Amino acid sequence: MFGEILENVRRSCPLIHNITNYVTVNDVANAILACGASPVMSDEPDDVSDITSICAGLNINIGTLNKMSIEAMHIAGMRAKELGHVVLLDPVGAGASRLRTETASDIVRKIHPDIIRGNISEIKTLSLGGGSTMGVDADAADAVTEENLDEMVRVAKAYSASSGAVIAITGAIDLVADSEKCYVIRNGRPEMSRITGTGCQLSGITTAFAAANRDNMTEAVAAAVAMMGLAGETGVGNLKDGEGNSTLRNRIIDAIYNMDADTLDKGARYEIR
Amino acid sequence: MFGEILENVRRSCPLIHNITNYVTVNDVANAILACGASPVMSDEPDDVSDITSICAGLNINIGTLNKMSIEAMHIAGMRAKELGHVVLLDPVGAGASRLRTETASDIVRKIHPDIIRGNISEIKTLSLGGGSTMGVDADAADAVTEENLDEMVRVAKAYSASSGAVIAITGAIDLVADSEKCYVIRNGRPEMSRITGTGCQLSGITTAFAAANRDNMTEAVAAAVAMMGLAGETGVGNLKDGEGNSTLRNRIIDAIYNMDADTLDKGARYEIR
Amino acid sequence: MFGEILENVRRSCPLIHNITNYVTVNDVANAILACGASPVMSDEPDDVSDITSICAGLNINIGTLNKMSIEAMHIAGMRAKELGHVVLLDPVGAGASRLRTETASDIVRKIHPDIIRGNISEIKTLSLGGGSTMGVDADAADAVTEENLDEMVRVAKAYSASSGAVIAITGAIDLVADSEKCYVIRNGRPEMSRITGTGCQLSGITTAFAAANRDNMTEAVAAAVAMMGLAGETGVGNLKDGEGNSTLRNRIIDAIYNMDADTLDKGARYEIR
Repeated sequence: MFGEILENVRRSCPLIHNITNYVTVNDVANAILACGASPVMSDEPDDVSDITSICAGLNINIGTLNKMSIEAMHIAGMRAKELGHVVLLDPVGAGASRLRTETASDIVRKIHPDIIRGNISEIKTLSLGGGSTMGVDADAADAVTEENLDEMVRVAKAYSASSGAVIAITGAIDLVADSEKCYVIRNGRPEMSRITGTGCQLSGITTAFAAANRDNMTEAVAAAVAMMGLAGETGVGNLKDGEGNSTLRNRIIDAIYNMDADTLDKGARYEIR
Repeated sequence: MFGEILENVRRSCPLIHNITNYVTVNDVANAILACGASPVMSDEPDDVSDITSICAGLNINIGTLNKMSIEAMHIAGMRAKELGHVVLLDPVGAGASRLRTETASDIVRKIHPDIIRGNISEIKTLSLGGGSTMGVDADAADAVTEENLDEMVRVAKAYSASSGAVIAITGAIDLVADSEKCYVIRNGRPEMSRITGTGCQLSGITTAFAAANRDNMTEAVAAAVAMMGLAGETGVGNLKDGEGNSTLRNRIIDAIYNMDADTLDKGARYEIR
Repeated sequence: MFGEILENVRRSCPLIHNITNYVTVNDVANAILACGASPVMSDEPDDVSDITSICAGLNINIGTLNKMSIEAMHIAGMRAKELGHVVLLDPVGAGASRLRTETASDIVRKIHPDIIRGNISEIKTLSLGGGSTMGVDADAADAVTEENLDEMVRVAKAYSASSGAVIAITGAIDLVADSEKCYVIRNGRPEMSRITGTGCQLSGITTAFAAANRDNMTEAVAAAVAMMGLAGETGVGNLKDGEGNSTLRNRIIDAIYNMDADTLDKGARYEIR
């Protein structure tokens, strides 16, 4: 089923508007292209309404937010929702600064994103008002583990119910939840955390997957998360002696480029709770 | 002849000032270095006049324009023209938003760039007031094809005559025109459109080629366009099993780095109309 | 001894706040991850005080400075010093524009960075009020050579004494000086100058090395400089036929990722003057 979701992306090639950080933006663009969609970036308040109008989805990432881009996020978000586009929020660093926490909370409250994707610390900050974000990475103390899995599944479903968004919590174990069901996904490799931007790339790809599969959004998000993890496995598997995180970055995007429906269906490892 | 143009770049190593988007800026810098020139980036209005003064060429790319950078484009553009430097405009997304169309038109009218390089949709928007830009990519309906080639050559020459700039329209078939002649270039590979930034890289390189070949500007632009296409062919040819768009990005810049005059002369495929 | 310094980074994994340019920021983040530390980027004045507070070091790079980021540099710098964090200044392009020279001088005077790392033209500009910066690269006329080495060592020590910072001057020969001693380091390869950002990466890494070795700062800076040069040697050594500057960029970061204490201790080539 995940394979069909990927094929829908390749068939419809949705144009995705990204208001995202300048650290990983190039990788986000190439990852979106790799999965078969098209990216456009714009964060000027006077430009974003026109740009988002010709797109199918909007990916809002607060990784290097500033006053100008925050204004643009709200303008683009309102316009995208008005037009019925998919809107995703990636609350990078929520919990690490007052501005990030408030900006993310504001966007959830005013824009009502269809999807919120973050690490466990960011999601706990938004859903519980807690969590101990270490910069832009989750605090180790916050990890989703086999031990706290039932509780974390409950947190994800409850936050989906209260926010109205599909919730994706990514880490060693990934969770994708709506109010009723939660995909527990076990793809991925720890080496992915030694590259900057795999989370940002996933947010861009997820927006594309959801835009191309509007009637099946929770599963589309789960498919994107599983595909990113599987691409990480392929990427690590293809590393040669002497290669490290910079080459791995390329190999993961390459693996997305070469992913097909069958590989995704066979490689995805998940259960539904 | 194109080979000699490349050797002039390597010999004079022109310093190129880039006001460009933050999506592909790193690749633009490395592509400029690969072809033998040097890049410097600055988009702060209070900084650009000093910076452009020590350069030989200015590359203006509106890919992620904002109010601050638009002001900087005008300040730098005026100063660069005053000093007789080469100025190139890459009107990314002209036609996709009012702000982009107006900004590009303003720069053409007030700065009089020496070169305008875009896809067919962007150039049609600027020259005819039409074109149907899809985000930052050309609309398929706008492609230069063998069928409409004569008409497109006329459009390019006419826009060169009215704007006073060398016009480069890049896509499956590339056109480089002044008011009297048009290079029709058939290098390149379709896989290049699956990487972000080959157009932006080309704009940086083209500025360097023109700056090092001031007396032969149309041919210098044609040489840059052919070299980029040829590097794409080499890059795709060097791809191994399992590699995709991210590795291709590296291989194209590597191919520029390793390009020599002889390879360029032998590999360039073009006619003059 | 340099190896132990690297191991301290890997053991303590310091979080480094970077206010840096958008050209090389992705490579800076991946290089910091490669050496075993963690990066976070933020340049919004309302965000940086919170972000820098949870970090161990602050890397200020003025490569694409603007009015907003300059304000953020001062806010973050003051806060980081207040908290006793390591602060590094990379005065990119000082000497190339009035704004860059003044901004760098202001930061030295008001923030008192613990480390200043630049090319010889930038350091001469700051220390002597001279130097002839060509854009963001050192002027060839300014190089540290075997002929002027004694004089340059004196300049570095004197500037360390007057500024209170450890001074790192990088180029074909690298100097790392405090007021009493100067490491003269001969690692590195000329091909590194054909990639954008090796200097910026080094500044990020140096901040991490210093943050993890507070009681041994001059040596920590020297270790970072030697490691970057050694990674360049490994990277160039691993290049295959047809590969160029873009692949080299990846191979250098990969070499940092795979660097171990023993390799660094054996590969570092330096003397103390």
